[in-house]
Amino acid sequence: MKALQLRQWKSDPVLVDVPKPEPGPGQVVVRIGGAGACHSDIHVMHEFEPGQMPWRLPFTLGHENAGWVDSVGAGVTGLEPGQAVAVYGPWGCGACPRCLLGIETYCENPAAAPVPAGGGGLGLDGGMAEYLLVPAARHVVPLPDGLEPAVAAPLTDAALTPYHAVRRSWPKLAPGNTAVVIGIGGLGHLAVQILKATTAARVIAVDSRQEALDVATSHGADLTLLSGEQTANDIRDATGGRGADAVFDCVGAEKTIALGLAAGRMMGDFTIIGIGGGTAPVGFFSVPYEYSVQTTYWGSRPELVEVLDLAARGLIRAETTIFSLDDAVEAYHRLEKGQLTGRAVIVP
Amino acid sequence: MKALQLRQWKSDPVLVDVPKPEPGPGQVVVRIGGAGACHSDIHVMHEFEPGQMPWRLPFTLGHENAGWVDSVGAGVTGLEPGQAVAVYGPWGCGACPRCLLGIETYCENPAAAPVPAGGGGLGLDGGMAEYLLVPAARHVVPLPDGLEPAVAAPLTDAALTPYHAVRRSWPKLAPGNTAVVIGIGGLGHLAVQILKATTAARVIAVDSRQEALDVATSHGADLTLLSGEQTANDIRDATGGRGADAVFDCVGAEKTIALGLAAGRMMGDFTIIGIGGGTAPVGFFSVPYEYSVQTTYWGSRPELVEVLDLAARGLIRAETTIFSLDDAVEAYHRLEKGQLTGRAVIVP
Amino acid sequence: MKALQLRQWKSDPVLVDVPKPEPGPGQVVVRIGGAGACHSDIHVMHEFEPGQMPWRLPFTLGHENAGWVDSVGAGVTGLEPGQAVAVYGPWGCGACPRCLLGIETYCENPAAAPVPAGGGGLGLDGGMAEYLLVPAARHVVPLPDGLEPAVAAPLTDAALTPYHAVRRSWPKLAPGNTAVVIGIGGLGHLAVQILKATTAARVIAVDSRQEALDVATSHGADLTLLSGEQTANDIRDATGGRGADAVFDCVGAEKTIALGLAAGRMMGDFTIIGIGGGTAPVGFFSVPYEYSVQTTYWGSRPELVEVLDLAARGLIRAETTIFSLDDAVEAYHRLEKGQLTGRAVIVP
Amino acid sequence: MKALQLRQWKSDPVLVDVPKPEPGPGQVVVRIGGAGACHSDIHVMHEFEPGQMPWRLPFTLGHENAGWVDSVGAGVTGLEPGQAVAVYGPWGCGACPRCLLGIETYCENPAAAPVPAGGGGLGLDGGMAEYLLVPAARHVVPLPDGLEPAVAAPLTDAALTPYHAVRRSWPKLAPGNTAVVIGIGGLGHLAVQILKATTAARVIAVDSRQEALDVATSHGADLTLLSGEQTANDIRDATGGRGADAVFDCVGAEKTIALGLAAGRMMGDFTIIGIGGGTAPVGFFSVPYEYSVQTTYWGSRPELVEVLDLAARGLIRAETTIFSLDDAVEAYHRLEKGQLTGRAVIVP
Repeated sequence: MKALQLRQWKSDPVLVDVPKPEPGPGQVVVRIGGAGACHSDIHVMHEFEPGQMPWRLPFTLGHENAGWVDSVGAGVTGLEPGQAVAVYGPWGCGACPRCLLGIETYCENPAAAPVPAGGGGLGLDGGMAEYLLVPAARHVVPLPDGLEPAVAAPLTDAALTPYHAVRRSWPKLAPGNTAVVIGIGGLGHLAVQILKATTAARVIAVDSRQEALDVATSHGADLTLLSGEQTANDIRDATGGRGADAVFDCVGAEKTIALGLAAGRMMGDFTIIGIGGGTAPVGFFSVPYEYSVQTTYWGSRPELVEVLDLAARGLIRAETTIFSLDDAVEAYHRLEKGQLTGRAVIVP
Repeated sequence: MKALQLRQWKSDPVLVDVPKPEPGPGQVVVRIGGAGACHSDIHVMHEFEPGQMPWRLPFTLGHENAGWVDSVGAGVTGLEPGQAVAVYGPWGCGACPRCLLGIETYCENPAAAPVPAGGGGLGLDGGMAEYLLVPAARHVVPLPDGLEPAVAAPLTDAALTPYHAVRRSWPKLAPGNTAVVIGIGGLGHLAVQILKATTAARVIAVDSRQEALDVATSHGADLTLLSGEQTANDIRDATGGRGADAVFDCVGAEKTIALGLAAGRMMGDFTIIGIGGGTAPVGFFSVPYEYSVQTTYWGSRPELVEVLDLAARGLIRAETTIFSLDDAVEAYHRLEKGQLTGRAVIVP
Repeated sequence: MKALQLRQWKSDPVLVDVPKPEPGPGQVVVRIGGAGACHSDIHVMHEFEPGQMPWRLPFTLGHENAGWVDSVGAGVTGLEPGQAVAVYGPWGCGACPRCLLGIETYCENPAAAPVPAGGGGLGLDGGMAEYLLVPAARHVVPLPDGLEPAVAAPLTDAALTPYHAVRRSWPKLAPGNTAVVIGIGGLGHLAVQILKATTAARVIAVDSRQEALDVATSHGADLTLLSGEQTANDIRDATGGRGADAVFDCVGAEKTIALGLAAGRMMGDFTIIGIGGGTAPVGFFSVPYEYSVQTTYWGSRPELVEVLDLAARGLIRAETTIFSLDDAVEAYHRLEKGQLTGRAVIVP
Repeated sequence: MKALQLRQWKSDPVLVDVPKPEPGPGQVVVRIGGAGACHSDIHVMHEFEPGQMPWRLPFTLGHENAGWVDSVGAGVTGLEPGQAVAVYGPWGCGACPRCLLGIETYCENPAAAPVPAGGGGLGLDGGMAEYLLVPAARHVVPLPDGLEPAVAAPLTDAALTPYHAVRRSWPKLAPGNTAVVIGIGGLGHLAVQILKATTAARVIAVDSRQEALDVATSHGADLTLLSGEQTANDIRDATGGRGADAVFDCVGAEKTIALGLAAGRMMGDFTIIGIGGGTAPVGFFSVPYEYSVQTTYWGSRPELVEVLDLAARGLIRAETTIFSLDDAVEAYHRLEKGQLTGRAVIVP
């Protein structure tokens, strides 16, 4: 079968022919219906130093995957060939306290995982191929009726990540409270939709580009703000001086983090989602009292089930552009140059 | 001033002239902009036995009140004459653990409250008059911009009550979960709106009248069911056999309670809101494992603030019909005969 | 190997020779170090009608099991032969929303479980044998240092069950709040210990036998009450008139349930743990406002890990009496006659 | 009456004669039974610049107060002269969302408070006098039986502050989880006791002084560590490599914050309690995923009630040394020089 593999660090992937995988005991092979191209793949391909991650080359790219069950290994029950499924991306040890609750992105025994700190497309063969070997049936999540694999694929990361961040702040997002989303790109435009679908909080969207703010407005943002010197003040003005109850920074750069700290309310949440390299200095004299600051990374398997429900019911949707496997390298090039509208999804 | 007073048990109220109240220390007088007529008033007027409640006659009716600050007593700060306000209805002792958290409906020292187990319009003078004396400034809640007192008044009870019930079930109402509202009347049509505004759960509305279900549909219910023998099965079918994660029974009769028990999911919530006289038999062999069953009564002051925010932003609205004080008795008569569309609001 | 099997409904089990099990893919064979004899086994053996449960005879008894890993099947990682382990007892489908969170006692797809509504010792071969076949590695929980299998075995049910009930009421058990345990037997004496170890709530123990109350006192109960007509009043007196914030009824009979309803505080929890056949009538005029009433059954896998931690650190301990496999029938006879002190544990 | 007043910035307080206060409407005068001397007073007296805080001189010191009700103003109910009470220290506006829930330390309308960002002893007359005027009855909290005002006084700050921090981390402090307290001084030795009383988490105490660690051991700490280069590694070793679920830094200096960040577990809490001037840099490459970092400041009124319950039942106690009003300046001098054992309490 054809597969888009990374064969050398600091290089483009190449389309090669590899054997179709066979499922061992407890494993599942998924016929790919869609594999999302994520900006983090570009970091992996072009910026990772050899040896930086404990991953062996080559491996097939693609960590946002959905398709149909092709075959199951011994001992796998409850999955039928042909069934439409999404693949939960972070593959942990399966036995530590976090994995037992389905939040394998925070696996505490990575040495016992199929690959440390990764999954399919991140150190192991991923979904930019005709078939994907999933090493444990628990990672295979049935799609609800009416949700196509090519639509579901990017949601497994681009929606799951902001969903996890928003969900943990639900108790602070009652009516009368305010959420701020900084950066209305791939994750941010989904964060706005998730907030509107799951809470009655007011949603303020912040970006440096008017067209991004227009997208936020189309998804129901209550207020949009072009980022600038005055943005934190604008947010305070819009909240009766209190500040935002929850800020989701989908950029994570020094400037956006500074905004997130300045715009927050005492007892609020500031969650850094974007891996933009910034750092938040938290102390008594720099941030509001009891303003919680944390990063988050990806999400849990039960949360993926919830994300797919939202999508199947039309409450969230990701903007996507479809590419064939033959055009996948081109998709990454356009992603790198910022020439894409929405998420690129590779459909074999 | 004119006031609609209950002067004898088991009788209609009468419109009389009484002195305008003056605020003592810590008190507030509100000029009434609207006072809702509630079905429970009819119980109070026509069904309560003399001595059943520790309340002295006469008192002015009206426990769903909003208007404008008229005057404040010594020591009251933060309220300006002319300011639009709603009145939080349950008046407790103000000092017990529940009152300190603003949930005076569950006051644990009713002997120290202005009236035991009541408030304005329930044992003390209420809002069916030109002015209302509020015995403590904490019960006066500023209205958000754009919300008129006549619109806000019925929300202080008819929306606050289902809001409190729904809010305590939020953790069980994630995407993929299902809420059922039984009885789409005054409280139920607001319960549907509150669920849609504050959660992404699927909402099933149940009633015996098609026109009530049409109202539910207009407010976004995902599925409506005419109640009958098969309703519990229909709910199980609509939830993949699991049952409903939260059922809100706005009727509270034997039959609706039986439905609520039969339709529930293990670990779900069943909340009896309507005081219809029914009883839920909870045991290992009669209800799903860990299905929580409880009544609820009214709500808390912070929750009232949240309800008003939802209304000001157009996310919930109560159907109302406006009456003058002179027509208030007529309003109750029509309410009693079921001839009203929506809540009757008395506007002096 | 020897195994104590139930071969006919309404009969005593018999000790027979059966082949030692072999682990298939994903499975684990555990060498038994202890298997608890539970009162519910007596119901299964002597009271279940043929066909009442979808279970086929014969099967080996014993659903409270611990021991050492003997061998693992293909695809099982992270478990070493000789490792001390407990066995999580409720075996569900592994794929439904509840199973994915490790609360297989509430499995929502029992048709896909190894046996419907059961586990080892309940419809499938259990631990009253030299070896136990565990059908999925996830049910095998490593024992913390210092905890012997014979000590751990009964905790997997007799401690896990009250632990689950107490844990869900933690938010209502802050300092100043009061917990009541009704019935200080096998589950109740552990409920008292769990409450003292994990909360700062006051603990009131209720029983009809003074010696049971003495056990409660030895485990730290703050107040003990011989049950009688006045017990609900005594509990109100001891709580400043408020009532208990959480009541755990380890008996579940009509009388204890009546006490639990009468002794509760508005907004409290009443959890029926004992399957004594009683029913709680919940309505506006029979129980305090918003007093939550529910049954619970067993517990979750993450909770079992927590229970084992408490035991390894000496914060809880079950009273036990050790029997050999040859004396297991005798152990059940003594259990049936009430002649046992603490839990009987069969050690092969 | 005698009162210890700060009359000039950057100076010692002086004992003066002032009129006994009279309660206005809604106010209470408390006869002081104890007033704690807090290290933060030394900052106020000796380090604040004129104009740094919007506070007018002179004012009486003492923000940790308890005593007996002396007299109440018009409209105050539920308090009797002679009743033993503690005074909740942070005095907010009473009407903002935070104040309505009793967490006035985070008042959002400080301009409407009796004094901005302060209370009795912090900008207004405090408790180092024979009598204290409390501007609103809600700040007066009855003492439970058996708790003397001189014992209760320091708890209103030195125990309430760590209690608030610990309480918000309860959900992360189940059995099997680990809490770390850094700095076993006035707040830290109470944090250890609060953790042991209210959770079953393992408690690790860290300090640079062996005698402080001995105090922690006497209060039940499970492990003590002399702070040094290896402390974070020691904490990881003691937690199976996972790190601490909640770290409470009662120092708040650069070094202790660095330790708190290095010792944490993914999804844990790091709460900075001590105002030691340090800053925590939070980013993807500096702290574990989803490790929540925040400051906290003082606590809420309902939490004070809980703290007093713990103390009345002997579950926590503060080490104290008693001084007369005449010796109060001397007490501060000894506090400043580190020559005190436990908290200094001024008893008039």
